[in-house]
Amino acid sequence: MKCSVARTLSVIGDRWTLLIVRDSFLGLRRFEDFQRDLRMTRHRLAARLGKLVDQGILDRVPYHDRPRRFEYRLTEKGIDLYPVVVALLRWGDRWMVDSDGPPVELLHRNCGRHVMPVLTCPACNKEVNARTMSARLGPGSKRRAERPGHARVESPHKEQSPI
Amino acid sequence: MKCSVARTLSVIGDRWTLLIVRDSFLGLRRFEDFQRDLRMTRHRLAARLGKLVDQGILDRVPYHDRPRRFEYRLTEKGIDLYPVVVALLRWGDRWMVDSDGPPVELLHRNCGRHVMPVLTCPACNKEVNARTMSARLGPGSKRRAERPGHARVESPHKEQSPI
Repeated sequence: MKCSVARTLSVIGDRWTLLIVRDSFLGLRRFEDFQRDLRMTRHRLAARLGKLVDQGILDRVPYHDRPRRFEYRLTEKGIDLYPVVVALLRWGDRWMVDSDGPPVELLHRNCGRHVMPVLTCPACNKEVNARTMSARLGPGSKRRAERPGHARVESPHKEQSPI
Repeated sequence: MKCSVARTLSVIGDRWTLLIVRDSFLGLRRFEDFQRDLRMTRHRLAARLGKLVDQGILDRVPYHDRPRRFEYRLTEKGIDLYPVVVALLRWGDRWMVDSDGPPVELLHRNCGRHVMPVLTCPACNKEVNARTMSARLGPGSKRRAERPGHARVESPHKEQSPI
């Protein structure tokens, strides 16, 4: 699909994969630690880790020689998934939290405040949401626009749609 | 799992569900439009839409009487998923784009600039990333902390982990 959301989901659009990425941000690196935390079968975990390595999101790095053992570390591409994980965390804190309050609190180390990061416009620095944003087809949409019968291109809401 | 990321993923941690949410932000509301765009089976689409309605992310609203027809509209809870969709879009634009450039461009209507929103600290207004953020256990983590043998709580990286 000619859509960056769909392309991202083709790589991480799986609950277990995103939980592995979350655990990586929490500092987990070893197969046994992921397994203990996620309680996945070894087979399923190995498959997900392998896919994340193939996609360049995790690096498989040896940490022990005899026997040879590997750990999994986020690459730059993986570290750049941080806004995805924070967005999932923020929504869960707001809509899925129980009476105990948020399980995790984030700290902005540069200013020392406990905060939940917000999505802002880099041009005017105002917070944005679905109602203050629109979308238009960009340069990479050309081939898609030529595809006949595609709902999105013909949608009457296209110009006002937030994404 | 006592984690807001895991709770969110229990609701939307499925590729098709997130594509339906994306399409809703693009202005699609009707079963036939979702089906044409996503090329899912009717059965699978109906199941996903039903789950999104049950979770309060979409509202099922009648728009025609005879025959009775419904459309699906994002609720407040659904509209609040916008940062998740933008985060997925941003990552795809950066890491999965082809030479044609981004398929979609976002416009901040308040200031009129075409921008990709960024994640910032609401206290100091600086852009944040995984390296400038830490996590600590919050009030809702109590029961989890008491659960023995849980990797996250014992992790030596806990204090420095970005989430």
